[in-house]
Order: sequence, then structure tokens, then C-alpha cells
Amino acid sequence: MVFRVGIVGASGYTGGELLRILANHPGVEITYVTSREYVGKPVHYVHYNLRGYYRGLKFVEFDVNGVSRNSDVVFLTLPHGVSVNYVPKLLEVGLRVVDLSADFRLKKPELYEFWYGFKHPYPDLLSKAVYGLPEIHRDELRNTGLIASPGCNATAVILSLLPLAKTGVVDLSKVVADVKAGSSEGGSKPSQGSHHPEREGAIRPYEAEGHRHAAEVEQELTYLTGSEVNVTLIPHAVSSVRGVLTSTHLWFKDYIDDIDLMKLFVQTYSKEPFVRFVKTSPPGYPDPKYVVGSNYVDVSYAVERRVRRLTVFAALDNLMKGAAGQAVQAFNIMMGFEEGLGLKYPPLKP
Amino acid sequence: MVFRVGIVGASGYTGGELLRILANHPGVEITYVTSREYVGKPVHYVHYNLRGYYRGLKFVEFDVNGVSRNSDVVFLTLPHGVSVNYVPKLLEVGLRVVDLSADFRLKKPELYEFWYGFKHPYPDLLSKAVYGLPEIHRDELRNTGLIASPGCNATAVILSLLPLAKTGVVDLSKVVADVKAGSSEGGSKPSQGSHHPEREGAIRPYEAEGHRHAAEVEQELTYLTGSEVNVTLIPHAVSSVRGVLTSTHLWFKDYIDDIDLMKLFVQTYSKEPFVRFVKTSPPGYPDPKYVVGSNYVDVSYAVERRVRRLTVFAALDNLMKGAAGQAVQAFNIMMGFEEGLGLKYPPLKP
Amino acid sequence: MVFRVGIVGASGYTGGELLRILANHPGVEITYVTSREYVGKPVHYVHYNLRGYYRGLKFVEFDVNGVSRNSDVVFLTLPHGVSVNYVPKLLEVGLRVVDLSADFRLKKPELYEFWYGFKHPYPDLLSKAVYGLPEIHRDELRNTGLIASPGCNATAVILSLLPLAKTGVVDLSKVVADVKAGSSEGGSKPSQGSHHPEREGAIRPYEAEGHRHAAEVEQELTYLTGSEVNVTLIPHAVSSVRGVLTSTHLWFKDYIDDIDLMKLFVQTYSKEPFVRFVKTSPPGYPDPKYVVGSNYVDVSYAVERRVRRLTVFAALDNLMKGAAGQAVQAFNIMMGFEEGLGLKYPPLKP
Amino acid sequence: MVFRVGIVGASGYTGGELLRILANHPGVEITYVTSREYVGKPVHYVHYNLRGYYRGLKFVEFDVNGVSRNSDVVFLTLPHGVSVNYVPKLLEVGLRVVDLSADFRLKKPELYEFWYGFKHPYPDLLSKAVYGLPEIHRDELRNTGLIASPGCNATAVILSLLPLAKTGVVDLSKVVADVKAGSSEGGSKPSQGSHHPEREGAIRPYEAEGHRHAAEVEQELTYLTGSEVNVTLIPHAVSSVRGVLTSTHLWFKDYIDDIDLMKLFVQTYSKEPFVRFVKTSPPGYPDPKYVVGSNYVDVSYAVERRVRRLTVFAALDNLMKGAAGQAVQAFNIMMGFEEGLGLKYPPLKP
Repeated sequence: MVFRVGIVGASGYTGGELLRILANHPGVEITYVTSREYVGKPVHYVHYNLRGYYRGLKFVEFDVNGVSRNSDVVFLTLPHGVSVNYVPKLLEVGLRVVDLSADFRLKKPELYEFWYGFKHPYPDLLSKAVYGLPEIHRDELRNTGLIASPGCNATAVILSLLPLAKTGVVDLSKVVADVKAGSSEGGSKPSQGSHHPEREGAIRPYEAEGHRHAAEVEQELTYLTGSEVNVTLIPHAVSSVRGVLTSTHLWFKDYIDDIDLMKLFVQTYSKEPFVRFVKTSPPGYPDPKYVVGSNYVDVSYAVERRVRRLTVFAALDNLMKGAAGQAVQAFNIMMGFEEGLGLKYPPLKP
Repeated sequence: MVFRVGIVGASGYTGGELLRILANHPGVEITYVTSREYVGKPVHYVHYNLRGYYRGLKFVEFDVNGVSRNSDVVFLTLPHGVSVNYVPKLLEVGLRVVDLSADFRLKKPELYEFWYGFKHPYPDLLSKAVYGLPEIHRDELRNTGLIASPGCNATAVILSLLPLAKTGVVDLSKVVADVKAGSSEGGSKPSQGSHHPEREGAIRPYEAEGHRHAAEVEQELTYLTGSEVNVTLIPHAVSSVRGVLTSTHLWFKDYIDDIDLMKLFVQTYSKEPFVRFVKTSPPGYPDPKYVVGSNYVDVSYAVERRVRRLTVFAALDNLMKGAAGQAVQAFNIMMGFEEGLGLKYPPLKP
Repeated sequence: MVFRVGIVGASGYTGGELLRILANHPGVEITYVTSREYVGKPVHYVHYNLRGYYRGLKFVEFDVNGVSRNSDVVFLTLPHGVSVNYVPKLLEVGLRVVDLSADFRLKKPELYEFWYGFKHPYPDLLSKAVYGLPEIHRDELRNTGLIASPGCNATAVILSLLPLAKTGVVDLSKVVADVKAGSSEGGSKPSQGSHHPEREGAIRPYEAEGHRHAAEVEQELTYLTGSEVNVTLIPHAVSSVRGVLTSTHLWFKDYIDDIDLMKLFVQTYSKEPFVRFVKTSPPGYPDPKYVVGSNYVDVSYAVERRVRRLTVFAALDNLMKGAAGQAVQAFNIMMGFEEGLGLKYPPLKP
Repeated sequence: MVFRVGIVGASGYTGGELLRILANHPGVEITYVTSREYVGKPVHYVHYNLRGYYRGLKFVEFDVNGVSRNSDVVFLTLPHGVSVNYVPKLLEVGLRVVDLSADFRLKKPELYEFWYGFKHPYPDLLSKAVYGLPEIHRDELRNTGLIASPGCNATAVILSLLPLAKTGVVDLSKVVADVKAGSSEGGSKPSQGSHHPEREGAIRPYEAEGHRHAAEVEQELTYLTGSEVNVTLIPHAVSSVRGVLTSTHLWFKDYIDDIDLMKLFVQTYSKEPFVRFVKTSPPGYPDPKYVVGSNYVDVSYAVERRVRRLTVFAALDNLMKGAAGQAVQAFNIMMGFEEGLGLKYPPLKP
């Protein structure tokens, strides 16, 4: 069975990554790609890597009728605050939707005002959307028509905390997630800060007074633990292109010995197709370099008993498990495909 | 039909890349991997990216009986001058061999003394080996048991010159191939020159008095044109990790107009599955960045009429079309598989 | 007045940086450089950048008589645990010593066993050595013959915490310093982890169970505050060459308003020649990229009131304010020179 | 004696580099800096590295009266075709001018139409301007009021060819200069091609149908040899930030032995303060990495006798000897200062 798939906002990095993944997906035919800037241009005009793929497919301007006629499912890779206006229309004409923006991730409408600066116009839809993290919401994904695909940093932080969340051994009121991210996380639009001479060699905090992916992390951990959780995210730009590492620092409340700690990670992830627990050396700890191009997230931890400090790590490719890869994984579940379909490429090394 | 495949020298970068490609190849089961340094270690101990693949497969010490019992076909990724001693034994016990060293690439034994500093011990085998460049030797590859897989720089230079080779419009006695290569071309062994603080930001000529891939280029171009060809290669280390760009500078002997020049490239490569002709903008010219992780080689050219200069460009991923990818492409042809089997991953961008 | 200066361990990165700085220092003549590996080679054989400087100066094997005859002052850039055996002999023959190892930084001998794994053979000398951080120990530096130059990460963490240390507004029992460091921090010796293909693009925790620079930070903060302080350092390798950013995360104990917080930083550093407070945009926060090649450390902070979290940042060039630059600054104070002599080069951009 | 210096176009990379160099120049006081985009902002608002320098100095809009009142000498770092309109006015009011654009480099007005696409409005001024390459025009620089500072790529190509130019041993009708350049060569303005995710890891030809710095190279070599010279330049973007390497490929016409060839380079440059001949290993050949931050240009060559090929190399920092550093060197000569004043910082390593 082959579904017709449209991508709205297909000229950015996440759109390109969806096209890259889906080029070999046996259950998908890409029928519709939109871009305001590149209307009429072929796909490879923007995505040079895809020269030779999608011959004849050209970018068009978004149009509800167009997308509805041509697609069964739509992926949206639009900015926050824009997606929210498209999704209801697409659902209305009967399409299934995978939204990669933040616009349907949070359950409490008031959080949109606090973190994103707009009043959410469709609060009822928030409860219908499923947060597209298969490791937590796999069953709900099977029965939804609207996936809110998680943020890249949030995915990493949540998955590294997941094994500990319900144990009570760590203090979840003081959680600091120190994020290091490659330049592709900022998107395909040039700016002063992403200008190569300025960005290469940089190690630069940004949005350091609180990154909004904290809202997703707090929501999901609260959902899992049943009690309030406080998480603060501080992102840093480093000079990789693809890749995010999150180092989430916690303080122990109770004692847990080494074996039990390791068991928590091993057991949580032993059956997950895209989470790998990295504890043995080398390289010792997760490094996003070794998941580049793949849908894996590598997780681990380090303990400093002297001061009762625990750090959990997660490494992922921000365009894959952090965006397009995860969206396809959730899409596969929603459509009844095998979860890893089209996602089985091993990462690159070196 | 599934063949049992062994890899001799599987802990280096090319070995790792073969493992990465073949992990999803439906006609291959990896049964045997050798490494002197890592005997007894699992594959992911060296190739961190492959954690979760090849569970249970461990490196062993090379042994003719071992490989013969366990394999139908063997890939060798050994240093020049080492491979030459293994290949005859492997052929003798009935294995088919893909050798990724230079040891069987050249037809004239005396060239080994000049370029590689050793007297070739098996000159008779040289004529039996097929130079594994499908774009020139596809038919011979169908009927061989020994493939000599080309060098990365040589592949790029040859494929960029191929459309012009037989035309007579350029002077093939004065050909300068200026090569720019990423650090993975130097292999997985640390050295002073490849130490990150020294290599990052470098633009550094090496082996600038003549790189030995010139021998392969001259051999293949002479084979195509029937007359003597002189090519000089000057490699430069730049701070990419994967990727080679060759800029091969030539002087026009005769006039050819723009349309005819373009036709030469279009026609030569219109049916080749892994050669892409890049002439329209953007990005204007080939850039290895946009073939990373794939088996493509992107080719093009630029003409400066004022001085009758032509430069032909080729960009490839040195571990893929420059090594492991090309070896699998030739292997597919030899074994009767579809030529692109296991090689259809699009490149990454960005 | 010109002092004769020897450098023991002059072929490493810190030795090279001392030579680079001192090449233009009007109060210094370099008379003696040692290296076991490069005996007999000229300085530029190792430090290619210094071709044309120090003509005639060659590396010799270390020898107490040699250094004593040729020098008034000696800089030591030797590994931890090695320096400790040289320093007493150099002091004995009347030389003044600037030791860049950790061997005389800590006041409590037992900490060497815990953090460095050796019993300190000269505990009496520990109290005589001055921790070479001018911002804390300027006066003592004027009257010492033995400077223990601080570690790079420790310098950054201490200087970012200094304005807050005595205020009581933050909880100094739970301090997490998340360190991001370029590859030159690992020294000039090639290794698997620093091999360019593996290190470029990496974001990789190391020594994540507790980095020993924590001992220096705790010592100095305890010295300043008079009460016990707990700091944990978690370093990460990123793909810069030069540069360290430390993001030190704290929790507020008491309320302090924005103006008062800013005043603490402004007042602490208004007269310091090499500490710059970076609060206005752009670039918003310190980035080691913009101190490369100089002795500056840029400091700042970010507050997330919602969760009572404060992060203090410091950015420095690990070879300058993190090593050789700071050593020369302390040397200048010890010798009675103007503190910034030879150190006034502005950083590079881009 | 201290001259008042203005910089027109001071917010770009070359302007910033002039400010960096001149911050420590004892014969210069910066009195006037212009920028259309940053009027009213302090210098460090743009040049973050210069925080703490030039306190109180702010960017102003260009105005002839303003600059004339405040300056004795003016540096112009404006785009080609813009400078040409400012220079005559500045000369008229009695200022001495160092122009870093191409607008006064070429002696033949018609070349501006061919290479730069505009008819030169002041052809008479072309003969008055001195091409600011001290290694060729040192004497003329002492007596001029208008310096046309050379292009970065042209400087490298000319200085590597200089030792051979008059010998007659190479064929100067077929000279290919293959240029590899870091991203800062493209200036401080963000663009798609310089966006970090696209530029990092790139090896990309541009302006490959002939780069206009060829005009300068041909002019200067013709000036030296008295006969026509044909040079073609093909630049390539690589992922360094600072640094250019030119590999200029030539064919021998006559025999010259190794000793005589080396003598040509040694003798040509033995007294030049900023040209270093790099022939011994390591690192074997020039690498711009080891001149970063300094005014040096490192030159060398490699010979492949088999095919009668010679390649000459030059490595420089495009913002220093390729732009601001060279401009200050020429300025020093014009003003009667010691030639290296303010330029004696050794390069960085690593």
C-alpha cells in the first residue's frame, strides 16, 4: 500500500530531510511539495543532494485544495505560530497530519502565551494531538490523525531522563539541561550568527535565560511521574553541522547503586528500535557524531558520588531523531507500517 | 540468493564503510571480519556507529582456511604491498576477491617498482584483474573473479576526463589534477599531521612531487585513447572529513563550442547510475559536501576562453565512490545483482 | 632590565605559546628550551609558526646545571607528577619558577592522592607556592619565587563565580560547571580521540565522573568565602581548536535584583586588565572565539527566574589566559614588570 | 610622530583587521571610522574582539569634511566600483590614501571594463597609484600619496612566481593558479553559500571561468619580465576561516637543477621581512594555518621531473598579508616608519 504524501514547507532543512528519507520509503509517494520562495523550481534546485531523485517534482505555493486533491497525509515543517493556522484546515478536508512545529505539542493552552507569545486559537485541538514520541506515546500514535512531532532538544532531554523519571532517586525540581547543538538546528536561513566565519569555532550560549523546549520536557515528565517537574534548558551553539548533545545535570535524593542504575537504562531501552544505551568504552559516552544521518538517539549517564551529582546524556541528529526521522517513525506507527520503515540506514563514521 | 562475505582488514575506515553499506544489502551476509589489533572485539567496539548491527560478530585474525570455510567472496582493505600476498591464496581456494588496495590496479608490472617501490611478485595476475571502474569496465566485471578497486583520487580524475578523452580537443600531454581531500582519506591511524589541532583549518599540499594515483589515470586514459597521456596529481589536505574534489586543468588544442562540450558530458553520463552532471546553478559546481554518505560522483567543468583553459571537476565521498561504495557497485556487477543494490541512499545535506 | 628565561618542556602547545608571547616581550630573552623528543632541532622544527624567530635556538635535554647557568627564571610545562620532581631542584639553585602543571596548585597534600593518584613528595612547598591567578592573588605574586599557574577550566570557572562568591545569594553546595573545550586542550600528542576524522564534528563528554580541576575551584572559592564549597566539573570535547567556554549552573538561595547582579560583575572587574564583562548584545554572551590569541577572559551570566536558576559563563583561550598567557601575566607581577607586558595583542575576529 | 588615521568602511572584516593591527601601532591614532549600517555604535558592537579598545570611538557616516578635519591618512575598505568615487575627493583635500579595493590596482583603464564591468572614471589617477606590494614596489611606495593595496589571491600568486619570473625556465604562457580560500575571504555579509551548515565541509569551485585577480598577476609579471604573461586563477572555497593557499602550476621550458631552483627562492627572499621560504620538513610545504594572525606569506615549490611540472605554493592570512597587514606594511613605508611597525606578532599555532 502506497500513500500519497505532501510536504508543506519543503525547502527548509527538515523538509529536505523528509525528502531524503522518504525517497526510499516503500509505502510513500511524494506528490506535493510547497515553498513560497522556490515556486516552480525542481526539488534539487534547493536540495542539491537530491539531484536525480524526484525528477519532475516542483515546488508549488500552498493551497488547501491542491494538497487535499494530491495527498493522503501531510507533513508540515513550518515556523511556530504559522502551522497552527494550517492544521485545522488540513484535518477538515480529511487529511492526516504530522506537524513538526511546536503548535500542537503542549496540552495547556496558556503555555503558548508564556513560551511562544501567542494565544492558541484552537485549544480543543491540543487534546486531540498526540505528542509524537514513540517511546512514550506509541499506542496513542496508532489511533490518531494529528501528530505533534517533538522538538529536537526536548527529545534528547526526555529520553535521557525517562529511565529515572519514575524512580524517585533524583530531585526533579532542580534539573539543568545543558544543550550543545550544531548549526543546522538554526535552519536554512543565513544570519549574522550563522555566517561561517562567525560560527566556525564558536562555543556560544543563546536563549540562555530559558529555552522553550523546557515546556515539552516538563509536560512529558509530569505526565510520567504524576508530580510537578522543573527543568531548565540552556542551549549552546558549537561548530558541528548536525548533532545535538544534551548533558542534563541532576542531584541524587536517594541512594542507588551502580548495577541498579545501569539496569534502569538497559531495561527501559532494550526493545526500543532507535534508542541505544552506550555505556562501555570506547567512546565511552554518547557523541552525536556517531548517529549522524540516522534515527538513533544514544543515551548514557555519569555519576560523581563525591557530590551526589548525576548527569544523563543523549546524542541525536537534530534533523533525524530530532525532526524528520522521528516524524517518519511516528508516521509509520500511525499508518500501520513497520515502525522503522525507511529509517534503517546506519549512521556515518567518521 | 545470499552470498557469505568476508572482509579482511575490517577495522579501518574502508572496512567500516563496507560494513555500513552491506548492513542493508539483501544479497549479502557478513560472516567473517579480520583485524589484527582488535581480535575478539565486537564490530561496534571500533565502529561506534554500528552499535546494534552485526550483534555477535567479532574480529578474528586472518586465516586462509577460516575465510575459505566462511565466505564466498572476500573484500580486502589492506595496505599496498600487503594485499598482493593474500590475493593469490584467496583465489586458489576458490574465493572471489574484491581488492581495494593498489596491488592489482596497474597492468604493467614495472610501474609497481616506480610508484610503489616493490617488485610485483605475481605479474601474471595483473592481466586477470579487472580495474573496478564500472563506467569503463562494466562488461569485464561481469566475468571476473578478481576486482582491483580504483583509488579515490584516480576515480574522480578519470571520470571527469572521460567525456573528453576521445575527442582530441584537449592536450592530454599536459594535464594537472589539483586534488583537495578530507582527512578521512588518510585512514584511521592517528598521526601528527592528522591531529585535530593541526589538521583543522589546514590547507596543505602533500606528496606534491607526484601522487601515485597518476599511474592509474594514465593507464585508463591511454586505454581509452590509444595514445600516451601525461597526468600529474597534486593532493592537498583540507579540513573536511569526507570528500574529495579534483580540479583537473587542461589546455584546449582545438575549438569546441559550449553546446558540444555540454553534450559530451550529458551523453557520456545520461545512463550512468552513479555519475551526476552538475551544470546548472546553484550550487554551480560539484561540491563533495553534497555527495557525502552516497555513491555518487558529481562532475562538471569550467572554461576560460581568454586563455584556452578548461578545468574539469569531480566530487565524491572518498569512502563511498572513492572506496567502499565503488567496490560494492563492482561486486554487484560481478555477482549478477542489480548494480545499485544497497547503494541507493541519497547523500546528506547539510 | 632583561631576564634570561628557560622553558622546560618547550615543544608542546603551552611551550610554543610561551615562545610566541615572549618573542616580543621586552624584558625577556629566551636562553634555554628543553625537549626530550626534539633535542638538537631548531624551535621552528616543531613550532612552524615561529620560523624566522629564535634563530639559532635549539632544543636541549633538561639538565639542572644547564638551566641554572643559562636562566634567571624557568617556566615548566610538564605533565602532572613530573614537574613535582624538577621544581625543588630549580628553587635550590636559586631560580624563580613558574610551574604550569597542577603539582603545586593545591594546598592540601591529601588532595593529590585523591585527584592525581600520587602522594605529594614535597608538602612543605605547597604553602610556599602562590596560585597564579592575579585576580585573587596579585599581592602574593609580587613576593614569591614559585608560581603554580592555574588550570584552564579552573580559571574560567573561578573567574565567573568570583563576583558572586561572597554574596551569599547562591547555593554554593550544588554547583555544576559544564565545560566545552577545543581540541588543543588535550595537548600536542596524537591519539584516537583527537584524530581529525573522529574529533571534527564531535560533541563528546569525557572524564564526566568528575574532572580534577574541581579541586582548584573548591580551594579558591573556599578561600574566598571561608566556608565549604562543592563544585562538579563535566568537560565536553567540541570541534573548536582553541577555546573553552564554561557554563556554571547555580541555584539562587536569596533574591537579588537585576541591577545589583550586574553591579557585582561590573565592580569586580572594572579594573582588571584581562577580564571583560560582556552583557550587551551582540553577541550577547561570551564566546571563546572572540578571545582567541589573547589573554582575555570574557565573563557574563544569564538568569531564569521561573526556576531560580543562574548560569555564569566564562570564555577564554585555553593556551593563553588558560595557560601561557596567564603564566606570563603572573610572571610579570613577580618580576616587577607592568602586568600586561607582552600580552596586549587584541584577539582575532573572525 | 603620530598620524591621525581614518578608516572608511570600518565595520567589515578588513576594517576590523586594520583596527586590530593599529590598536598597538605607536605611530597611529585612529580618529575616524565610518559605517553606514552601524552609525552611532561603538567599535566593539561589531568587532567583539576589540571590546576594551577604542573606548568612545563610534562609527559615523562618511563625509569628506569630517574625514579631512580628523585625519592625515585614510584607509578605504570599500567594494570595487565604490572606492573609485571617494579616492579623488580624499586626495583633493590633501589626505594620503591607502585603498584596499581593486579600483586603482590596474594600470590599463580598459581592463576595468573587461574584469570589473565599469568604465574607469579617473584613468589619469591609475598611473599615480602605486601597487602596494612592497616586495616589488618598495621604492615607489616611499614617494606616493595613493596606495592601491593588492588582492589577497594576487599577492600569493605573484610572490610565489616572483623568484622564477625573470629566469626564463618556465613557460609563462600557461600558468594555472589553483586557489583554496577560507570563508572570511568572502567578507562579513551572510549569504546562502557562506551559511555555516552549507559552508562547513565544503570544497567548492567558484568564479571558475576566470577570477579577476588574474589581471593583477598578469600586470605585475609582465612588468617584471617585459613580455606578455597569461595566468588563469580558479578559486575554491574550503572550510577554513582565515587563510589562502595558492598552488600555481607551471611547465618547465628549460632545465634547472635542484640547487639553482632553491637558490632562486632563497636569494629572492632572504631580506624580505614578511616572506618566509619553507622548504625543509616538517610541515614540508606552506600551510596558511601557520601564518594565521600574522603578516607572513610562506612560499615554496614542488617539482615532478617525470612530466616537467613545477608547482609554486604561497600561503597567507587573507586578512593580513592578503589585506590589512599588507596595507599597513605599505603605509609604514609611505609614512617613513619602520616597515614592520605594528606587524610583528608571530602567527598562531595550533
